[in-house]
Amino acid sequence: MGSQVGGEALVRARVLIRPKEGILDPQGQAVERALPALGFQGVSHVHVGRMVELDVEDASQLDQMCEQLLSNPLIEDYEIVESA
Amino acid sequence: MGSQVGGEALVRARVLIRPKEGILDPQGQAVERALPALGFQGVSHVHVGRMVELDVEDASQLDQMCEQLLSNPLIEDYEIVESA
Repeated sequence: MGSQVGGEALVRARVLIRPKEGILDPQGQAVERALPALGFQGVSHVHVGRMVELDVEDASQLDQMCEQLLSNPLIEDYEIVESA
Repeated sequence: MGSQVGGEALVRARVLIRPKEGILDPQGQAVERALPALGFQGVSHVHVGRMVELDVEDASQLDQMCEQLLSNPLIEDYEIVESA
């Protein structure tokens, strides 16, 4: 799905950010408690994180963007998914 | 990556939620403005959304969970990604 703009190939990337193992996830807990109340059974291990979608010219910069702005490396893990 | 618990196959699912086309995305705009200030050039079309990860026994309920709790269908689109 890459597109060409002025000779530069744009990479569509998706960054998934979630709380690290062991870090409190109050949003996830709230969802996990709310689902049974709405009649949905058998749901567990709910975690709520963020997703950032962006077009980049240089995909090798993505790691640094995550470290410096998109995630908080102290308490969050990130995963980069590129779609060509 | 499905696991068996008491004979029930658990499905690990990931729900990606993003603002609909045309809905204001102030977080995305903030990231798009901040990246060049940090020295990252050539970044565009930044959108910030949410990600919910969860284990479910019955994956067919996921759509309804998204409609009722996980997303706001008026202003957000969602995408369900299952990992077996």
